[in-house]
Amino acid sequence: MLSKTLVFLGLGLASATSCVATAHAAAPAMPAEARATLSEAIAADHDQALSRLREWIALPSINAEKLNRQEGAELMQRMLLDAGFDTARIIPTDGAPGVFGRLDAGAPTTLAVYFMYDVKQFEAHEWSQPPLEGRLVERDGKTVMIGRGAINQKGPEATLLTAIRAFKTTGTPLPVNIVLVAEGEEETGSENFGQITGDPEVAKALADAVGVILPVAWQGNDGGVEIYLGAKGVAEVQLVADGAKSGRGPGMEIHSSLGASVENPAWRLVKALDTLVADDGYTPAIDGWMDDVRPLSDEQIALIESGIRPGAEAAAKKELKVQGWIAGEDYRSSLVRLASQPTVTIQGLVGGYTGPGGKTSIPSRAEAKLDFRLVPDMQADEVVSKLRAHLDKRGFTDIQIVTGGIYGPTETSRDAAIVRALEKALAGADVPHTLTPRLAGSWPGYRFTDPPVSLPAVFVGIGQGGQAHAPDEWYLIDAEDPKLAGIDRQALFFAEFLYALANTKP
Amino acid sequence: MLSKTLVFLGLGLASATSCVATAHAAAPAMPAEARATLSEAIAADHDQALSRLREWIALPSINAEKLNRQEGAELMQRMLLDAGFDTARIIPTDGAPGVFGRLDAGAPTTLAVYFMYDVKQFEAHEWSQPPLEGRLVERDGKTVMIGRGAINQKGPEATLLTAIRAFKTTGTPLPVNIVLVAEGEEETGSENFGQITGDPEVAKALADAVGVILPVAWQGNDGGVEIYLGAKGVAEVQLVADGAKSGRGPGMEIHSSLGASVENPAWRLVKALDTLVADDGYTPAIDGWMDDVRPLSDEQIALIESGIRPGAEAAAKKELKVQGWIAGEDYRSSLVRLASQPTVTIQGLVGGYTGPGGKTSIPSRAEAKLDFRLVPDMQADEVVSKLRAHLDKRGFTDIQIVTGGIYGPTETSRDAAIVRALEKALAGADVPHTLTPRLAGSWPGYRFTDPPVSLPAVFVGIGQGGQAHAPDEWYLIDAEDPKLAGIDRQALFFAEFLYALANTKP
Repeated sequence: MLSKTLVFLGLGLASATSCVATAHAAAPAMPAEARATLSEAIAADHDQALSRLREWIALPSINAEKLNRQEGAELMQRMLLDAGFDTARIIPTDGAPGVFGRLDAGAPTTLAVYFMYDVKQFEAHEWSQPPLEGRLVERDGKTVMIGRGAINQKGPEATLLTAIRAFKTTGTPLPVNIVLVAEGEEETGSENFGQITGDPEVAKALADAVGVILPVAWQGNDGGVEIYLGAKGVAEVQLVADGAKSGRGPGMEIHSSLGASVENPAWRLVKALDTLVADDGYTPAIDGWMDDVRPLSDEQIALIESGIRPGAEAAAKKELKVQGWIAGEDYRSSLVRLASQPTVTIQGLVGGYTGPGGKTSIPSRAEAKLDFRLVPDMQADEVVSKLRAHLDKRGFTDIQIVTGGIYGPTETSRDAAIVRALEKALAGADVPHTLTPRLAGSWPGYRFTDPPVSLPAVFVGIGQGGQAHAPDEWYLIDAEDPKLAGIDRQALFFAEFLYALANTKP
Repeated sequence: MLSKTLVFLGLGLASATSCVATAHAAAPAMPAEARATLSEAIAADHDQALSRLREWIALPSINAEKLNRQEGAELMQRMLLDAGFDTARIIPTDGAPGVFGRLDAGAPTTLAVYFMYDVKQFEAHEWSQPPLEGRLVERDGKTVMIGRGAINQKGPEATLLTAIRAFKTTGTPLPVNIVLVAEGEEETGSENFGQITGDPEVAKALADAVGVILPVAWQGNDGGVEIYLGAKGVAEVQLVADGAKSGRGPGMEIHSSLGASVENPAWRLVKALDTLVADDGYTPAIDGWMDDVRPLSDEQIALIESGIRPGAEAAAKKELKVQGWIAGEDYRSSLVRLASQPTVTIQGLVGGYTGPGGKTSIPSRAEAKLDFRLVPDMQADEVVSKLRAHLDKRGFTDIQIVTGGIYGPTETSRDAAIVRALEKALAGADVPHTLTPRLAGSWPGYRFTDPPVSLPAVFVGIGQGGQAHAPDEWYLIDAEDPKLAGIDRQALFFAEFLYALANTKP
């Protein structure tokens, strides 16, 4: 769910030419001695870090296929203990198990960390390298590791563990305590993640944390980083018109000459779909859908505007192969809409004959695969009931709603300690950054940001990767360009962030 | 195109319990001696007739795959000559060749016959018997031949040739002259059929004919036959929203989080489709679509009403697995609508992700496969221009129209000699029949019924078959039930029809 937002990042960063750092903190809070010690340990650990990541990539946990769920959780557990966690406990759920790790440094500040150990499906024949071997490839002045999960999310997660391990191996005290929650169902909608965060020990530990982070490696080619102060929620839903189940349409494919006598489920579906968005093809028109949509504040809009860099629009158009934006808007307006507007998206249409040419038939069943992106203060648990009521009111009681993963949006204050610490750490590392009010993509962070946990949440990291969910997924290991962080620098940055957080007032 | 109308026949006949014969002619015009002679010859030829049909089935001409086009035409040519035609000439076209056969009996009356030598595609693994071997299978008191083309249309056509052969082998003078036009593109929309009927010799020969027949074997299980006084036309069209080609949508599949910024071709398609029919989901709403629709006459409606037999509605509902008819109408109204209303049918929808669950993506392309059924006096050559104008007027200039086979409706007077002759022949054979104003299915008969040829056209035959276009296509060879005609009786019936026609005033 999260990973594909890399495409979205392309809008703002992929070929941006400059970056505005909005915070210029003092020198980093990391003692010089610790920096030298940790840096040396991380460098010495470089080859082992690659081996550990390769071992992880070699064990793909794919929840959609119920593949390696227990094995993936057990490896996650071993990796945490190996990196220096005091405890790591497997938490069974109704689906893939979770893992909960604690590392008590006796520090006054506790940081929560979110991990996913699952990965997306893959088709090996579409890859130029074996997807489970983590081979290194040189290209464009970069050494990258190719493998499923490389960037989404094993690479950045493994590198955070490398940083934590360096504290252990050098006997350097960690500046913060860490509680880590890992799940194995992120790619299928985190259906049972609430059972993990709802575990009494986990819930109590999260209550003590100042915030939660997800390790990422999302530097643009200019080296810049965006800090997202939230993310849209998402609901995956299929609408189905089934002539057999509804009793209205034909119970099997029939000859199209009967179109004047027998109802066509494909027309039922089209007529129902048509009511979900306005005639413009993008404004949601589901009854009550916009009731709880909170407009962006002036400050949020200003953040978006300040993040637009020269060349970004042209680069985005080229990447997406579009000539313009929805409603013919300028780039600024389109980015505001991207952050602010809930969406009703058709991902796919499938019904009846789908081969070449035609078949003079009426289908018995037609399906639309939809997703809805949700913004504050829309409620995830109202999505299906509002949709059902909307359809029923218009007579579409025969249209079935089949639900997939559904979760709400997140929002984090820019004043949160983890955000300020991240800004300080980035400034200290000479990494330019911008603040962005909302990621248009989604992740199950609401389990942290919503009550009862109510933590701020932010993505933390430097480095790069790409092709998440796609063939040849990659993660940056080393780069000639000093603006792009290889894994050693990425690991050291995580350490810098932990120091910055320890030195930031909650 | 035509073949699937067997499903439609199910509406009226499949399990009907009685049949009303609307004409009770005197004894058949066939001399008793000729009947005895021909009957004996046909019976003696029975096994050879099966062999000839098997040989034909073993050579499938499939125009969509450009398979056996020349070979199929050459076999057709040999079969005509072998059956007794004086001449049979292959007529090249831009597609599959046609075949034109003449049999001059020196009779005052000339009958035109339409043949198709092509068949629909097949998937051998879906069949219980090899689709090209013409094996005989016993079931439900029937001996049937299984094979692609068995009922659609090689079986009935071969049986007509068996009848003609019997005249030759017995030295019995044919009561009418025959001109036969065969094409190999019926299943793909008869794109080049006009090049065959437009051949000067063919055109001249057709001008001398009193009408054209297509051999069929469409008896219901009660033995009854429907005489169709016309057929709807058809236009196969695909509507395509392609983000790359239009430049509006994404040029490739992109992440669905971008739904608020980048136009979704699937929504363009749905919004365009929605305008094509009224909110009821079946009334055509394309600008000017209904302008030339001629309502059924009172006589035509009366014909439909008189053709409704007890049990037919229940049988049709069971066969189609529906609980009711469009608009909640009664069966009579639905049959009137079936005959009278042009249709706008979605055959298939395909776009974006079509696998299990969802994929959080926006497609680059979406397509709807449509067909339109046309009634008199709609003009086939106006279909695309009206559709284009309708879409353009509403701003859907980006929606592409891809056309397949398109041809207009046919209509034949119940007073035509071939219709009266058929009624006489059926009455003489004790086969009950009803007259039906219009088949909801389509065949390229407009090439005969439209100017300059302007011939009446009718489907002629008794016997049975099923599963046209589907696996295990079958054709009735013999039946225990005397109401159902095996191939020998079918062949004799063709002879009876020829005599009846010779004795019917034009």
